[in-house]
Amino acid sequence: STVDYKASHLTATLPGLVNIAAFVPGLAKAGSRDFEKVMKASAAAGFSMVRIMPLGLENSLTDARALSTAHSNARRAAYCDFNFSVAATSTNARQLTNLTSEVGSLFIPFNHFSGNVNKVAAVTTHFEVWPTNKPIVTDAKTSDLASILLLASLHGRNVHITSVTTKDDIRLIALSKQKGLQVTCDVAIYALFLSQNEYPQCTALPTKEDQAALWEHMDIIDCFSVGSLPYQVSLDVKGTGSPVLGIADALPLLFTAVADKRLTLEDITKRLRDNPVDIFDLHEQPHCALEANLDRTVRVEEQDCWSPLTGKVLKGYVERVVFENETSCLDGVLIADGHVGKDMSSSGPRPVATVKSPPIKPLQ
Amino acid sequence: STVDYKASHLTATLPGLVNIAAFVPGLAKAGSRDFEKVMKASAAAGFSMVRIMPLGLENSLTDARALSTAHSNARRAAYCDFNFSVAATSTNARQLTNLTSEVGSLFIPFNHFSGNVNKVAAVTTHFEVWPTNKPIVTDAKTSDLASILLLASLHGRNVHITSVTTKDDIRLIALSKQKGLQVTCDVAIYALFLSQNEYPQCTALPTKEDQAALWEHMDIIDCFSVGSLPYQVSLDVKGTGSPVLGIADALPLLFTAVADKRLTLEDITKRLRDNPVDIFDLHEQPHCALEANLDRTVRVEEQDCWSPLTGKVLKGYVERVVFENETSCLDGVLIADGHVGKDMSSSGPRPVATVKSPPIKPLQ
Ligand SMILES: [Zn+2]
Ligand SMILES: [Zn+2]
Ligand SMILES: [Zn+2]
Ligand SMILES: [Zn+2]
Ligand SMILES: [Zn+2]
Ligand SMILES: [Zn+2]
Ligand SMILES: [Zn+2]
Ligand SMILES: [Zn+2]
Repeated sequence: STVDYKASHLTATLPGLVNIAAFVPGLAKAGSRDFEKVMKASAAAGFSMVRIMPLGLENSLTDARALSTAHSNARRAAYCDFNFSVAATSTNARQLTNLTSEVGSLFIPFNHFSGNVNKVAAVTTHFEVWPTNKPIVTDAKTSDLASILLLASLHGRNVHITSVTTKDDIRLIALSKQKGLQVTCDVAIYALFLSQNEYPQCTALPTKEDQAALWEHMDIIDCFSVGSLPYQVSLDVKGTGSPVLGIADALPLLFTAVADKRLTLEDITKRLRDNPVDIFDLHEQPHCALEANLDRTVRVEEQDCWSPLTGKVLKGYVERVVFENETSCLDGVLIADGHVGKDMSSSGPRPVATVKSPPIKPLQ
Repeated sequence: STVDYKASHLTATLPGLVNIAAFVPGLAKAGSRDFEKVMKASAAAGFSMVRIMPLGLENSLTDARALSTAHSNARRAAYCDFNFSVAATSTNARQLTNLTSEVGSLFIPFNHFSGNVNKVAAVTTHFEVWPTNKPIVTDAKTSDLASILLLASLHGRNVHITSVTTKDDIRLIALSKQKGLQVTCDVAIYALFLSQNEYPQCTALPTKEDQAALWEHMDIIDCFSVGSLPYQVSLDVKGTGSPVLGIADALPLLFTAVADKRLTLEDITKRLRDNPVDIFDLHEQPHCALEANLDRTVRVEEQDCWSPLTGKVLKGYVERVVFENETSCLDGVLIADGHVGKDMSSSGPRPVATVKSPPIKPLQ
């Protein structure tokens, strides 16, 4: 990223970013426009690639039929590039092998709205049949987290832990990384800035103590995500979830942390572009970028949907988004239409693996 | 073990055996005679050393006071050697460090009558403060099992899994051993011979399929145990638990399997003497032995307490037990009194470690 001091304000140019875990509530519901909403919001916010979580509010992408519904809902809604993933169930490990070439990754859910896997034997089967060149992602916590880390190490597999929210979990991941386990993780951006202190009814948020531990372990947080946490917060606080909450806020929240000297721009691009590309084997997007005005303060206004940030002042604003050499969004107004992006779900693994740590190293 | 063919019946002399997990319901209850009952039954059955599980029906050995009550209950009840262990709670890791020299091992309970630990952070603390030369035992199953195996390997610690009952758990342990994790395990003798087929109300028993998997994995079963499974079975079937059920049956059941060519005598002594001594760092007992008549069939008779074996015919009978060069039991009649044995709770680790595998080996 380069910072341009010539203008009267501080401008930063960042590469196109990756929304690594976009939650689309109506994902597998025929006729749902949630995918379109999430893609529009993501493209406008500065994301050039969106990895769609395979878990919706009521249905998940657990078979070919659900995946086909999701593709239908995605028609003419490619406001930037995207891919689909599939979700593990206790019984679908072998069926999913037919879909591996059509999706970006396998998600093993333990804590989600729709569907959970909780048997060691079922998870073991997924580890045994899912191809080794495709990522495995999970939202496992506490004992489930320890359990999946063991299974990953026994099978010599990488695993990515999404939406880490507690002190205990981030510490376990830190220890596992230290001992050479092939684990990566992300933290939801909302979890870095909102806590149960402000929203006691939302137990999916970290406590203040947990949040402090997340910030202390910033070095072991590989990616930032939006995830389903904003939806969960809106559900807990207002009773209705918003599919787009948290997407437009993502960069302004992080830029505000840069202004507060809690993060650097490099911390952001590493966790929203470089590491996601490595971990999830994503295509390069050299002709995508965003320009942010780091001096511009914006008071979050009352919107159609409730936001926990309403009334707060954030510093840093995405003024222009460029997708494939064309301006796709200007001052928050989306210009691109729904066929500029590509469905990258079937994109094969990149030829050269960039990050590979040894499976398990002997303890020191 | 030697087999004496000179007599008209087949006699086997075995070394004194170890009851590695004796369940004493009233363990920490002042005035309880359960300890005495269990010791008498164990000594008469051919055990020369009894490791008392630190988990009672209502109370566990989780602090110095409970341990002191247990010692009081043990007075004049040393019908053979024994030791006490302590049980982990979510909060007592540091307090237990004062007791490490007074007990044989640490038990981390997940599935017991009294008290469970289920937080990864709490278990982690126990792994971090419990001395490395003292064994750690747990009854963790499924996700908890995977979780504790990870924590043990991250901390380079041995861990012994007691009372494995399912196909999935024995397979996970088999895979973990294969990958070089320092894990050992035992199976309750009742789990090898009784199943949910006969007692559907007793879900602590294996299913027939689970039981078959246990027998198939005999090579990775390090020890046999009595454990709390017989108590649980009597509780489930009759509503009242028996503290001595399963102890007198232990060897006749195993000898019957020898007669049926499902086990060898070496299989038994390895799992009831040699491996327990190695795993739990126990003292040698060269002057203890038992003589069994392998041809003698006994029909299990109606007793004071209900037994699932009543009416069944078992082949193989312990005719004499020798403790410290003296006959301690003859034809089922206990001769020894309650001060022939020693409290070995404070016995230090043996000078030479006999079995030590590397902490984690790189995967092949
Ligand atoms: Zn498609
Ligand atoms: Zn496997
Ligand atoms: Zn291009
Ligand atoms: Zn167009
Ligand atoms: Zn004592
Ligand atoms: Zn540690
Ligand atoms: Zn002696
Ligand atoms: Zn005496």
